Amino acid sequence: MVNYPNNKKISNSNFKSETHVGLSEKGMNLESMINQTNAYYVNNNIAFIYKKPVPITIGKVENKVVYGTKQSIITKAYFNEKSTTDYNGLYNGYYIDFEAKQTRYKTFNLKANLHQHQSNHLKSINEHGGFGFLIISFYTVDKIFLIDFDQILDYVDQHNSNIPLAFFEEHGEELKVSYNPQLDYIKSVDKLIAKRKLGVKNGNK
Amino acid sequence: MVNYPNNKKISNSNFKSETHVGLSEKGMNLESMINQTNAYYVNNNIAFIYKKPVPITIGKVENKVVYGTKQSIITKAYFNEKSTTDYNGLYNGYYIDFEAKQTRYKTFNLKANLHQHQSNHLKSINEHGGFGFLIISFYTVDKIFLIDFDQILDYVDQHNSNIPLAFFEEHGEELKVSYNPQLDYIKSVDKLIAKRKLGVKNGNK
Repeated sequence: MVNYPNNKKISNSNFKSETHVGLSEKGMNLESMINQTNAYYVNNNIAFIYKKPVPITIGKVENKVVYGTKQSIITKAYFNEKSTTDYNGLYNGYYIDFEAKQTRYKTFNLKANLHQHQSNHLKSINEHGGFGFLIISFYTVDKIFLIDFDQILDYVDQHNSNIPLAFFEEHGEELKVSYNPQLDYIKSVDKLIAKRKLGVKNGNK
Repeated sequence: MVNYPNNKKISNSNFKSETHVGLSEKGMNLESMINQTNAYYVNNNIAFIYKKPVPITIGKVENKVVYGTKQSIITKAYFNEKSTTDYNGLYNGYYIDFEAKQTRYKTFNLKANLHQHQSNHLKSINEHGGFGFLIISFYTVDKIFLIDFDQILDYVDQHNSNIPLAFFEEHGEELKVSYNPQLDYIKSVDKLIAKRKLGVKNGNK
């Protein structure tokens, strides 16, 4: 079930196959919702946030004629490790940088989901006046949270890398799925901005 | 000849072949200088600016065993058009976004060098409180300039798409090649930030 902003509940089947949606499909679903939302923000002059292309090393390019048109086609390329995160951009004068993750568990394991250099990157972003956060979908309970990366680091420092759902319910901003945009996360970014202006780092709601 | 900050002049041959360096090599040279500089900024905790990967659509991935290790190799992929610019990131709380271009002419033609949607993107960045600019290498005269994209647009609005070198000499920030970092452009970004704070849009130096 998906919670709509008007509290009407509709079945997931409106989006994908009714049950047994595979991990990769679920991940794609979160990603496609964010991509649709980012396109909506650009088209409505709200924010300029994009997904970075997959980093690759090109090994071989061939010029082929496809339907009478010359085209360059990559015929050998290798995947590189991501150096940073999937999404970054600009909103209202602020630098925005985040990674989107989905998990079938009721805990989020930081180390299992982010490389150390990605964690370091998000930490640096927050230290330098940007807004680094995660969007995490706990899809078995149909809940999606946006959470300041500083709060993630505070938890991990004080406890361990395995962060329970309850922590997100207390400290994160829950995101609701809608029609257009599909995942209107920028309102939650506004809250992060407001909190930082107030000097509240780990404020309870 | 390359102008070093200490005014010592050395031959280009220290970098590449002595003469007749091809367009693509020269372009690569500007790109590699910027990449080296960005790595320097990250390593020294100054700025977090990265080149975006080449956007592609993956057509086919094969799992191959290379030296006894399973590896995913892309065996078919297509180039996509870039939706934005090559470089973006965070500096001192500010969103940074730019494109690097090199030309053998003594004019810079905006339309020949940037797609309309890239121009629109940089314009939006400046309108939303980010810093959108170009780094342009006029390599036949060994001069590299950083210029606020607003100034580019002002010129094009008042004249035409063909912007003479003299305009960059008057309104741009000249960047000098050095050892490490190779193209220390962030000082010029500081000047853009200072100008904007003063409300100077097209201030003469």
